[in-house]
Amino acid sequence: MQTLKRKRRTMSPPVIIAGSFLFLIFVGTLLLKLPIATTTHISWIDALFVVTSATTVTGLSVFDPGSTLTIFGEVVLMVLIQCGGIGLMTFAVAILILLKKKIGFQNRIYIQESFNQNSVGGIIKLVKLILTFVLSVQLFATLVLTIHWIPTFGFKEALYLSVFHVISAFNNAGFALFPDNLIGFAHDPIVNIVLSLLFIIGGIGFTVVVDIQQKKSFKQWSLHTKMMVVGTIIINVIAIAFVFLLEYNNPATIGSMPLQDKLMVSYFQGVSPRTAGFNTLNYGDMEDPTILVTMVLMFIGAGSASTASGIKLTTFIVIVLATFSFLRKRSEPELFGRSIRLETVIRSLAISTISLFIVCFFLFLLTVTEKISFLPLAFEVVSAFGTVGLSMGITSQISDVGEVLLCMVMFIGRIGPLTLFFILMKPKNVHYRYPYDQVFTG
Amino acid sequence: MQTLKRKRRTMSPPVIIAGSFLFLIFVGTLLLKLPIATTTHISWIDALFVVTSATTVTGLSVFDPGSTLTIFGEVVLMVLIQCGGIGLMTFAVAILILLKKKIGFQNRIYIQESFNQNSVGGIIKLVKLILTFVLSVQLFATLVLTIHWIPTFGFKEALYLSVFHVISAFNNAGFALFPDNLIGFAHDPIVNIVLSLLFIIGGIGFTVVVDIQQKKSFKQWSLHTKMMVVGTIIINVIAIAFVFLLEYNNPATIGSMPLQDKLMVSYFQGVSPRTAGFNTLNYGDMEDPTILVTMVLMFIGAGSASTASGIKLTTFIVIVLATFSFLRKRSEPELFGRSIRLETVIRSLAISTISLFIVCFFLFLLTVTEKISFLPLAFEVVSAFGTVGLSMGITSQISDVGEVLLCMVMFIGRIGPLTLFFILMKPKNVHYRYPYDQVFTG
Ligand SMILES: [K+]
Ligand SMILES: [K+]
Repeated sequence: MQTLKRKRRTMSPPVIIAGSFLFLIFVGTLLLKLPIATTTHISWIDALFVVTSATTVTGLSVFDPGSTLTIFGEVVLMVLIQCGGIGLMTFAVAILILLKKKIGFQNRIYIQESFNQNSVGGIIKLVKLILTFVLSVQLFATLVLTIHWIPTFGFKEALYLSVFHVISAFNNAGFALFPDNLIGFAHDPIVNIVLSLLFIIGGIGFTVVVDIQQKKSFKQWSLHTKMMVVGTIIINVIAIAFVFLLEYNNPATIGSMPLQDKLMVSYFQGVSPRTAGFNTLNYGDMEDPTILVTMVLMFIGAGSASTASGIKLTTFIVIVLATFSFLRKRSEPELFGRSIRLETVIRSLAISTISLFIVCFFLFLLTVTEKISFLPLAFEVVSAFGTVGLSMGITSQISDVGEVLLCMVMFIGRIGPLTLFFILMKPKNVHYRYPYDQVFTG
Repeated sequence: MQTLKRKRRTMSPPVIIAGSFLFLIFVGTLLLKLPIATTTHISWIDALFVVTSATTVTGLSVFDPGSTLTIFGEVVLMVLIQCGGIGLMTFAVAILILLKKKIGFQNRIYIQESFNQNSVGGIIKLVKLILTFVLSVQLFATLVLTIHWIPTFGFKEALYLSVFHVISAFNNAGFALFPDNLIGFAHDPIVNIVLSLLFIIGGIGFTVVVDIQQKKSFKQWSLHTKMMVVGTIIINVIAIAFVFLLEYNNPATIGSMPLQDKLMVSYFQGVSPRTAGFNTLNYGDMEDPTILVTMVLMFIGAGSASTASGIKLTTFIVIVLATFSFLRKRSEPELFGRSIRLETVIRSLAISTISLFIVCFFLFLLTVTEKISFLPLAFEVVSAFGTVGLSMGITSQISDVGEVLLCMVMFIGRIGPLTLFFILMKPKNVHYRYPYDQVFTG
């Protein structure tokens, strides 16, 4: 009884994670409502929406950030993106390290929860490694982009734009300071390559990055790393091919472009939907099948313990493998000479079910509150859930109630649907089992 | 090696089931193309479409059956519906019983596959019981409807209409001989009650009906029966409430009706989508949220071993239970003091995954082939997959390629997605297990 009472009094990691995000959103909204943050008046709801979008690294916006925000407002946005992206927990620990304070066991548990790490021991080392890696990559990318942009914008502006877009890309936020996002750079290979590499690295998951850094050959990699690397390559190739083939003859998108630009835009719009959310094309002009494929990609998302949301690529792969192994009358899924526990399959099932439920539930509410046609609305909800930030162009038409609903979707998408439900549900750790009974399914 | 070879030569139950449906569709299409079957010329594709729709008890139609078909054509439709609905296998065995031929072990295996029955012993008894039950219910309902319709149509026409609509309702086919389906009977309580009871009984699954007949108290029922009965009541109450509340103020549907008609129409359109497919409202006029709820209901469907398709209500319940038990850190789902095997959970996962894949895949193809807006198209595909037959009114606008695609969806929906994939995949029955490795999900 004594230990039970003590447990209840301390907050659980899911509560801490959710609370930290809420705190960031609260402070951010106050800052963005300051007169020095914007060039024109914005409503509280609009401020809340854009701050939630930045903190959850989504990138949806009800106004054009480049023209509406002052430098101060843009810096607030950048800080929120960096905090929300590389993870509040890493951030908190980084400050603790800088202040040379002792990191308590409790704190390490939270970090463990954030990064899915199994042993508490390696956490501090992991955090240091991550921060070093993040800063090196961001610095290098900023250097490249600044040099590339100096001829167009001059040194000062080029540096500022580079810092903002590198932070936005690495954290998979998808915010850009140009009124048409990155459509103006559709034909610019440097911008396309630098930004896409940034969001692919940021979205693949820090455990994968660490694994690749520490073990040099494919064979030594963990199953998770192999799955993420091979899975990312396969799903990106498929996605690029789909965009290319489906939009090939669409004059509103890539139809009238020369072949090499068709390929570059298809590449960018193939890899971007699994959480980055930048666009070099107008999604309102795309064909319905491309929109459908994009929605599936947004729902799947990228890697666990990354700047990405969605159900995650590994969850998707586990479900596909489990389905195949069932059809082949094998009980446990297998890949690369390793078996996956049924526990992991059930976890993937739970994640996907809750995620589908959340998307359908909020889409349902939005069809009630909004007078917007179905497909753009569905696209918006999936985009918010996957914290992607792509839109068919309806974000600014959404009502105040709708904006609050989308904020909730982005928040749930970012903290993860399981985190939310672990907060809401009490575990039932009793040791009995009822007798089995047969249920006919399908 | 010897047994392996012999196994491959005999056809497996999934192949027999799929083959029987294809044979019925083939013969049906030939019959419907006979000049005596229709009042006007119909194309081969249109004949194939309506025959597939009837055999798979869907109810989608590219022409108005009441005015396009002759009595001969309508009888062909009725026979196809009865065969496709109560199951080709039962039908085949019934004929064997009538001819007093010995039913081979092989035949009984096929029936076992059709009805999910575990012991081969009780199959013949079960089939007799089912046929007696089906005929009694259909006769009684025909009697009631004929008496009710005599004042309007006269005896002969009333009897004929009753037989057709009773067969269509019991088999969950959703075909009606009136140009507006059942909209003309929206305010007729007898028609509403008789037809809805028929399709609810037909859709709950024969094993459930048998279980209820044999065991008088709730406590004695199997877990499957309890799940189906309680689940059907709960999902129907929720569905009715949704239709009522969402359409309450819609002048194009129930908005201008008196309260009791509002309730009756909501009742009918709440219980119909989970596979019956009759409509007393025009779905083209419904609100988007009602359409979304209806799509979810159509995807879920009714009972296993019934005239219904969809993933099945039990599959849906098992997935919801598994998700909850995972969140409460229990490994196996529980209900009514019984545990459900993880095997059943994985089976449900496989069914749902394949079903979602099939719906998304064919919807994708249709967005490429058709110039119809997204929501009506998605509604049509889900309706075909659940062999429901509701439509937002676009069936006759679909291209020839689109019709063939929808035929494939109806066929897969009716034989069951697992049946299809068991035909396509070879089992891998080897006895080893790789070492486990951790995968981070979600
Ligand atoms: K994003
Ligand atoms: K039907």
